[in-house]
Amino acid sequence: MDQLHTLYYILDLTGTFVFAISGAIAAKQKGLDLFGIFVIAFTVACGGGIIRDLCIGVIPPSGLTNWRYLCAAILATALTIGLYGLVKRLHRPVLFFDALGLSLFAVTGAQKALAYGHNVQVAILLGVITAVGGGVIRDILLNRVPVILEREIYATAALVGAIIIVIGNYLNIIKMEWVSIIALISCFSIRILALRNNWNLPVFKEDPKEKQQ
Amino acid sequence: MDQLHTLYYILDLTGTFVFAISGAIAAKQKGLDLFGIFVIAFTVACGGGIIRDLCIGVIPPSGLTNWRYLCAAILATALTIGLYGLVKRLHRPVLFFDALGLSLFAVTGAQKALAYGHNVQVAILLGVITAVGGGVIRDILLNRVPVILEREIYATAALVGAIIIVIGNYLNIIKMEWVSIIALISCFSIRILALRNNWNLPVFKEDPKEKQQ
Amino acid sequence: MDQLHTLYYILDLTGTFVFAISGAIAAKQKGLDLFGIFVIAFTVACGGGIIRDLCIGVIPPSGLTNWRYLCAAILATALTIGLYGLVKRLHRPVLFFDALGLSLFAVTGAQKALAYGHNVQVAILLGVITAVGGGVIRDILLNRVPVILEREIYATAALVGAIIIVIGNYLNIIKMEWVSIIALISCFSIRILALRNNWNLPVFKEDPKEKQQ
Repeated sequence: MDQLHTLYYILDLTGTFVFAISGAIAAKQKGLDLFGIFVIAFTVACGGGIIRDLCIGVIPPSGLTNWRYLCAAILATALTIGLYGLVKRLHRPVLFFDALGLSLFAVTGAQKALAYGHNVQVAILLGVITAVGGGVIRDILLNRVPVILEREIYATAALVGAIIIVIGNYLNIIKMEWVSIIALISCFSIRILALRNNWNLPVFKEDPKEKQQ
Repeated sequence: MDQLHTLYYILDLTGTFVFAISGAIAAKQKGLDLFGIFVIAFTVACGGGIIRDLCIGVIPPSGLTNWRYLCAAILATALTIGLYGLVKRLHRPVLFFDALGLSLFAVTGAQKALAYGHNVQVAILLGVITAVGGGVIRDILLNRVPVILEREIYATAALVGAIIIVIGNYLNIIKMEWVSIIALISCFSIRILALRNNWNLPVFKEDPKEKQQ
Repeated sequence: MDQLHTLYYILDLTGTFVFAISGAIAAKQKGLDLFGIFVIAFTVACGGGIIRDLCIGVIPPSGLTNWRYLCAAILATALTIGLYGLVKRLHRPVLFFDALGLSLFAVTGAQKALAYGHNVQVAILLGVITAVGGGVIRDILLNRVPVILEREIYATAALVGAIIIVIGNYLNIIKMEWVSIIALISCFSIRILALRNNWNLPVFKEDPKEKQQ
């Protein structure tokens, strides 16, 4: 299973890096300065994990102790500023890797909560929070309503991934490694299909008159 | 005293549920999608308690471990979407139960901090944070200045409730159960009277010229 | 070295108080009520330290347990409301003390993280977070993009201070007291020079057409 761990390691690094890239692009478009771009990149990459670690008692949070995350944010900032033309052309690849990051963070978030002995509900909630937390903090800092609350199947995909991990762990029929792979593929597929087909969760409109109230 | 505990249990559930309802209504009015409405409902019901638990070392926070909170948020979301016409007509009852939730969260927040052996100041601050924290996070997510910072006697009522708990605990003359009831009634009355009479804390206007600076 | 500790004590109080003043002024200009002004004052003074303490496991955070912080926020609120004409004329002194607060919080933040046995990276990150965290939360509550992300050499000065502490602690050639003083002076000088000469970090403009995307 060492190969799997190497795969995980590479995917985790990739997810962190791509989340950082997506943060840096958003910050640059908002006109932030060099430091601001780095902060947003770091936040998107590590914010969700830091909240998860605070909630399960991993002190200090691994987002602060692990130099890989810091390097990913620095590299993403440098790349976004230095090669902005190139990075922008990566629009589709970024969405692809962002979906990969989402899936991976949902799976590892739920697994980490279970590994620390917490219950099913905590694992599901923290799986989702790990996956979407960074993006929510990014939107709060950029002073807008978090995009995941308004549209797109995004957190829902993370929810499915986290639930599969919890069910797999409970049933304990097949090896956890396989459960992880199934959860990853499910979350990733839902997200990619939602992007491709422009799926959205229902929004419940009210007529404008009511909205005034 | 078992009756009192049953009463507490029912009041706590009611408070959580009504806080969730108020969050779901605000999210729906902002046009969020199904997931966004649920997140805001859950946040208002549990946000304050999660911050409190992180600050006093209850890991993981009971807002994440206790399935009742999750169910309250899910039920509130379903009700708000399914029976929106009905829920909106509940405007006055919602304010009533919101005041009840506020009082209860202020009292239980301060008591929990004292129960974990923390000092008077921590108990007062965490009583208020438990009561108003969820609403503040809701307003941050909905991208507006938290309403409790701009107007209305709201946090002030929670402050009075928390202070009564702390004084009662310090003097230790009458039973803590009675202190809780006095604190609850005081906080609730202040909030309801403020609503009825449109009481506000002073705002310190400056002339427009100054404001330009 | 007792004199140094007394000096630290006075500087820490001064920094806390001046941070609270700057928060109260911003809140008053935004038109918040009495409670809102106090909350923002307390937040700017204690927010960064509370995040730091949660991340290194100081439970409850000293921002909640230490009555000095609370008093500083109350006093700053009272002064800002009562003597607003005077406080506004203090514009330059406020920037001066704010720079002092920034330097001190960066230095003590990094030292506290090292004292709790955390690694170099955690110390640097938490030094910066302690120094700028309060201001970021203030801007989030006032519903604007945190000013430190958009312009000015501010967090960068805190970064330099925290790095000097970490290097001094690692090399262990001169006494930590002297390292602290060097870090304080460096951070403070960079901030004051940046203010005086209107230094900014680079912002990377894009042409408006691109921004539409």
